[in-house]
Amino acid sequence: MNITGEMIIGFRSVRGTEKGIQAVNPATNELLAPVYLSSGKDNLDEACRLADAAFDIFRETSLEERAAFLEEIANQIMGIGDELILRAMSETGLPRLRLEGERGRTVNQLKLFADVVRSGNWLDIRIDQALPDRQPLPRSDLRQRQIALGPVAVFGASNFPLAFSVAGGDTASALAAGCPVIVKAHSAHPGTSELVGRAIQTAVKLKGLPEGTFSMLFDSGTSVGAALVAHPTIKAVGFTGSRAGGTALMKIASERAEPIPVYAEMCSINPVFLMPAALQARGAEIAKEFISSLSMGAGQFCTNPGLVIAVDGDELDVFMEHASNELVKVAAHTMLTPGICAAYRNGVDRLKHHPKVTAVGEGQTGTESNQCQAGLYEASTEDFLSDASLSEEIFGASSLVVRCRDISDFNLIAESLEGQLTATLQLDMEDYDSARSLLPVLERRVGRILCNGFPTGVEVCHAMVHGGPFPATSDPRMTSVGSAAINRFLRPVCYQDFPDELIPNALKDTNPLRLSRLIDGRRQI
Amino acid sequence: MNITGEMIIGFRSVRGTEKGIQAVNPATNELLAPVYLSSGKDNLDEACRLADAAFDIFRETSLEERAAFLEEIANQIMGIGDELILRAMSETGLPRLRLEGERGRTVNQLKLFADVVRSGNWLDIRIDQALPDRQPLPRSDLRQRQIALGPVAVFGASNFPLAFSVAGGDTASALAAGCPVIVKAHSAHPGTSELVGRAIQTAVKLKGLPEGTFSMLFDSGTSVGAALVAHPTIKAVGFTGSRAGGTALMKIASERAEPIPVYAEMCSINPVFLMPAALQARGAEIAKEFISSLSMGAGQFCTNPGLVIAVDGDELDVFMEHASNELVKVAAHTMLTPGICAAYRNGVDRLKHHPKVTAVGEGQTGTESNQCQAGLYEASTEDFLSDASLSEEIFGASSLVVRCRDISDFNLIAESLEGQLTATLQLDMEDYDSARSLLPVLERRVGRILCNGFPTGVEVCHAMVHGGPFPATSDPRMTSVGSAAINRFLRPVCYQDFPDELIPNALKDTNPLRLSRLIDGRRQI
Repeated sequence: MNITGEMIIGFRSVRGTEKGIQAVNPATNELLAPVYLSSGKDNLDEACRLADAAFDIFRETSLEERAAFLEEIANQIMGIGDELILRAMSETGLPRLRLEGERGRTVNQLKLFADVVRSGNWLDIRIDQALPDRQPLPRSDLRQRQIALGPVAVFGASNFPLAFSVAGGDTASALAAGCPVIVKAHSAHPGTSELVGRAIQTAVKLKGLPEGTFSMLFDSGTSVGAALVAHPTIKAVGFTGSRAGGTALMKIASERAEPIPVYAEMCSINPVFLMPAALQARGAEIAKEFISSLSMGAGQFCTNPGLVIAVDGDELDVFMEHASNELVKVAAHTMLTPGICAAYRNGVDRLKHHPKVTAVGEGQTGTESNQCQAGLYEASTEDFLSDASLSEEIFGASSLVVRCRDISDFNLIAESLEGQLTATLQLDMEDYDSARSLLPVLERRVGRILCNGFPTGVEVCHAMVHGGPFPATSDPRMTSVGSAAINRFLRPVCYQDFPDELIPNALKDTNPLRLSRLIDGRRQI
Repeated sequence: MNITGEMIIGFRSVRGTEKGIQAVNPATNELLAPVYLSSGKDNLDEACRLADAAFDIFRETSLEERAAFLEEIANQIMGIGDELILRAMSETGLPRLRLEGERGRTVNQLKLFADVVRSGNWLDIRIDQALPDRQPLPRSDLRQRQIALGPVAVFGASNFPLAFSVAGGDTASALAAGCPVIVKAHSAHPGTSELVGRAIQTAVKLKGLPEGTFSMLFDSGTSVGAALVAHPTIKAVGFTGSRAGGTALMKIASERAEPIPVYAEMCSINPVFLMPAALQARGAEIAKEFISSLSMGAGQFCTNPGLVIAVDGDELDVFMEHASNELVKVAAHTMLTPGICAAYRNGVDRLKHHPKVTAVGEGQTGTESNQCQAGLYEASTEDFLSDASLSEEIFGASSLVVRCRDISDFNLIAESLEGQLTATLQLDMEDYDSARSLLPVLERRVGRILCNGFPTGVEVCHAMVHGGPFPATSDPRMTSVGSAAINRFLRPVCYQDFPDELIPNALKDTNPLRLSRLIDGRRQI
């Protein structure tokens, strides 16, 4: 497949008309051809017009058609072959194994949503049968299904060039729900985006779906994305990125004539609580696992463990020593972009020069450009609680250990935190009572709580919650990973006293789609 | 029970400190004792502090405890006896039968949510079992449940002094979810609010629940409500009222340091499409039912049919004649408040003096104060489409008929509409093809579509959707009536690799609550 530098407007490949961008190989700072010109207003309007025209057809495709479409996207992505991996490597600095793994995750995610679509559970069928003889008034026949919200704008993420970008979790769940998707490709990996975008475009064509089911635009800055979110056609937004970026989109969406939901997954420092008995029993082991989680992928994960909470004492000293010893072995990894690397270095410098923060250890420095030197720092409870900047995310392999006076500080620290994607407890049986006091505080603040693991590695399954209260996300009621992510793009419609000829198949008496249904309040499989 | 004019702050009854309000009997313009003083900042802070303190306890009460609490509220409301009906009659001008019916609806709604709580379906239990031998990486044990969002602010509605006020649908569904509730009582019926609020307060005490489970504040204007929505303790808002009021709360909520969801049910003109065959076959009958729906309760329903769409011709003339003949029989009803009556008269005057609008017929004028004279008006498609003010809601028994050139206008008009709570089709079999073309347009714009009924009368059941795209509501993904309303006050939390001793009962292997669960993606009852 040739990379052309063109956007995808339905079935057409179109060169943008505005300012150009080029990907940078972060390992070499070398510019990568071709130049991608940004979308002008006409291209954006045309993508929206096509999406709007496609919506009523696409949302009523059969469950099997939509599932097969998602599987075809997966096929097409695999069909690109090694060109996709090579291009993604050069655009992101991520190693081959990681990208092959991420491709597998992306493809499996599409297949999971194919299964989700086929199951039809997401339709949440509810039927209350007519009660014509009820006194004092009869009851009508009432039937509810979920339908797609409308065309969705998806923003590619820098740190998951495949699994949370053009054909990632947001796109897969929106398409599964029946929403046409317009992707704003991330400017850090336009070539990867083009390759994947064309795979989707081909799948749309092969499956005979309406042209506007998928489009993809480039943007040299933020104006195309902003215009997309403001466009009346768009009915929801999926975004993974910074707090500044996410809150900017939330503001645009809330100020529209018709406000729309934004699903922004933004920032999280993912506190890890080292409970005393666990720390005493397995401090060295925990230290090793912690540094492994911290430094994985240069720490460029939303669920990176950026905060560790433990009680001061000999056990913590042992942990810190082991952590430092592990840290010096951590090689420098190329970060995703020069901008991310610069922001990481700024954040780490701020910590290093903070009068109340002590450096505990550092990883290796790199010899290539834009490499991340991992770092571990510490502060006291008092100093941590008195400076909100210490709980700000530093995107990369940096973590801050809070030395607590005693375990009662754990609750204080938990209560001081903003919303988080995850919280982790390292604990043994003797710690359970302390955990019982801490858990309610954490449940209020986080989307996922782990025992004796580390938060990196987000399973794509049914029970996953990759979400949490603001500012971890813009909407604590939702998850952006896992099968429940489809719920973000649905809304209920009720049909009252419809004749069988007009009611959607999913709601017919004969249950032709063999759906699980709630009939008069009782679940019937 | 004596009406005292006091607010409810947990277990205390507290006189407000700010400007006073008094209810007005709209039938006589007489002021009703006592004076209700508005809440000051201290009272509001105290209610929030108590709600925050109650939250972790209340949200983890057992399903049976919470269900019994809702049933006890119902008992306590019935226990007030006729005093409640008499006070509500004097504060709202609504007749005894309507208020007795609404009390029944309120009590049944509480009982429905008790059943919903007991069923546990809302917990949406999802378990993905550990796969320790999976290659290349093992899978953790992941379990998801829904938990309560946090303390909720509920705004009483003028037009449902019982069913959508202090112990109405918002309160019932929020308490069912496990959220403490702080009500901002509607200033039009403070005495009714006090009586019902005390019934809830008594139920909280009787059931041994934490003090902050319920509080209720008065507000002479909008500042207490605004401060409540802005308060960091509050995590969601339920509101039924005007577009101006709802959008003001949305703005406050979106500008908080932590934005929160607002569920505002605002405005709707509930279009009724008279399809040609139905109009020809049963125009007179439809006209009679239409006027009955239009004039019920002085038209003060969110689902009042404020717009009728039909093709010009003899059949429509017959319909209009019958509608006019029915209309002149419609007695004037006292409206809820002098303010609502004045706004209605302004809206009707605007129609009457609109150069493109013709008056078709009117109901009787009243002899008492604040009475609603029903009215029917008409305009052409062209004029309707060229003036957006003609699709603004006039709260009361007024409706506008759009005379279409032909049936293709139906789709044009539907496409011109903002989000609506309902749309209605009056249709016969010969109309099904036209309906098939119109339905997708309506599905995009409304929460509930009816065939051959009228939209007034919102059943409280499982399949109901009382919701719809903006500005019908602030959140098209939700319903404010029916069992699914509980979903507004929930968020998912995932528990990874939890020991049995720490995981919530709802997620234990042994399924002690006997819940329906999604295990590895398969529904198990």
